[in-house]
Amino acid sequence: MAKLYVVGIGPGGLDNLTYKAANVIKKCEVVVGYKFYIELVKDIIVGKKIISTGMKGEIERCKLALQEVENGIDTCIISTGDPGLYGMAGLILELAGDIEVEVIPGVSAAFCAASELGAPIMHDFCTISLSDLLTPWEVIEKRLEAAASADFVIAIYNPKSRGRKIQIKRAIEIIRKYQNGEVPVGLVKNAGREGNDRKMVTLDTVDFEFIDMMTVVLIGNSKTYIKDGKIITPRGYNL
Amino acid sequence: MAKLYVVGIGPGGLDNLTYKAANVIKKCEVVVGYKFYIELVKDIIVGKKIISTGMKGEIERCKLALQEVENGIDTCIISTGDPGLYGMAGLILELAGDIEVEVIPGVSAAFCAASELGAPIMHDFCTISLSDLLTPWEVIEKRLEAAASADFVIAIYNPKSRGRKIQIKRAIEIIRKYQNGEVPVGLVKNAGREGNDRKMVTLDTVDFEFIDMMTVVLIGNSKTYIKDGKIITPRGYNL
Repeated sequence: MAKLYVVGIGPGGLDNLTYKAANVIKKCEVVVGYKFYIELVKDIIVGKKIISTGMKGEIERCKLALQEVENGIDTCIISTGDPGLYGMAGLILELAGDIEVEVIPGVSAAFCAASELGAPIMHDFCTISLSDLLTPWEVIEKRLEAAASADFVIAIYNPKSRGRKIQIKRAIEIIRKYQNGEVPVGLVKNAGREGNDRKMVTLDTVDFEFIDMMTVVLIGNSKTYIKDGKIITPRGYNL
Repeated sequence: MAKLYVVGIGPGGLDNLTYKAANVIKKCEVVVGYKFYIELVKDIIVGKKIISTGMKGEIERCKLALQEVENGIDTCIISTGDPGLYGMAGLILELAGDIEVEVIPGVSAAFCAASELGAPIMHDFCTISLSDLLTPWEVIEKRLEAAASADFVIAIYNPKSRGRKIQIKRAIEIIRKYQNGEVPVGLVKNAGREGNDRKMVTLDTVDFEFIDMMTVVLIGNSKTYIKDGKIITPRGYNL
C-alpha cells in the first residue's frame, strides 16, 4: 500500500534535516510542496516528480498529494519547520480518508532562531501566530494577553505579511502591559537558512522595519537577560 | 580555539537526529551528558572520551564540559530534544565565561509525540513543565490557568517524578475548569525511542497510572477532535 508522508524539513538548510526526514524524501517518488520549500531541498530530490504550488494553495496541494497516493505512489508533502505546528499535518489528516499517513517531525523555526540568539526559550514558552487569515484577531489578542500575564517566553510566528503590518506593533503593546520595557527580544530573519540575519533589542526598542514575513520574534520572560551578546533565560539553578 | 557545542539529539532514536547534530558529535573528541542520553547515541561516539554524570548533576556536567574546552579540546554536551527548551543551553551560557559556545537545535519531545498522535498541536501552543524543583508551584499553576483560559494546545513536560505524583492531577483539574471534558488528550511515553507507547484519552478520562517521567501529555484546544485514531487540531481551513 502506498503511503503519504508529511515531512518537516526543519528551518531550511539541509543540515538541520533529520536522517528520517531525508530518508523518507529520498525513497518517495513524488514530492509535493510550496515552491519555496521545494527550492530548499532541491539537492536531494533530483529526478523525482515534483508538484509545487503557490502560497495559499494548501488545500490544493494536499489534494494533489493524496491523489498520487491513490494512484499507488509513495509520496511526501513537505513543510518547513515541523509539519505539526502551523504546517500541513492537520490538513492532510483532515482530508486523508482511508489513505495511510505518517508525520515526520522537524526542528521548528523558534528553536533554530533561539539557538542563534543563545538560550532565550529554556523554560515554559508558547508560540503565537499573528496571521488572522484563519484565526479571529480577538483570539490572538487573548492569547498574547494570557501568555504575557503568566510570564511565558513567547515566540511569534508570521509577524507580518504584505497586507498585514500593524499586528506586530499591537502584539508588542499588549505584551508590554505585563512585562518591563527592558525584556530582551530577539528578531531572527530566515533562521537556519540563506538570508539569515538577526537583531537583539528590547520590548521598548523593537525594530519594526527589520521584521518581515520570514522573521521569528522571540520575547523573553521577566528573568531573561543579555550577556556577552547572547539572550539567556535562566531555569533557576543556584549558581 | 576549541569550542563547546550544546547539541540537541532529538527524542532519542538516532533517525531523529539532524545531520548537523550528528556531524558535530562526530567531530568532537569529548562527549558529555547524562548517562541515559549517552546511551542513546552510543553507536556514534565509539572511541571518544565520554563524561557522563547522574541525574541532577547538571551544573557539574557543565563545568566538566567547560574544563575540557579550556584544555583546548572540542567538546559537545548533549541534551535530548532541543537543548534550548528545558535543556543545557542556558546553563552553559550562564557559566561559559570567555569560552565560545554554539547551540545546535533538535526536535523537542512534544513534536515527536505529536507526530505519533496525528496532528494535535498545529496551532498556537505552549509547553509547561510540572517540575517544581526550580520553579515555584504557584507560577506553574498560573501558567496552566492562562494557557487553558486562552485555548492554547498544551504540552506538559515532566508530568511526574519519583517524588512528585499529584501535580499532573492538579494540572488536569485546572485545565478542566476552562475546557470541556471531551477535549482529546494524548499520552506519549518515550516519544521517538525504545519503550514507545501511547494512549488517547480525554480530559475526563486521563489515565494517571499510565503517565510516568518519560511521558509527554498533549492536551488539545476547544477545536481538537479524534478521527480514525488520530488527534487533529484544525487550523480553520474551510474544507
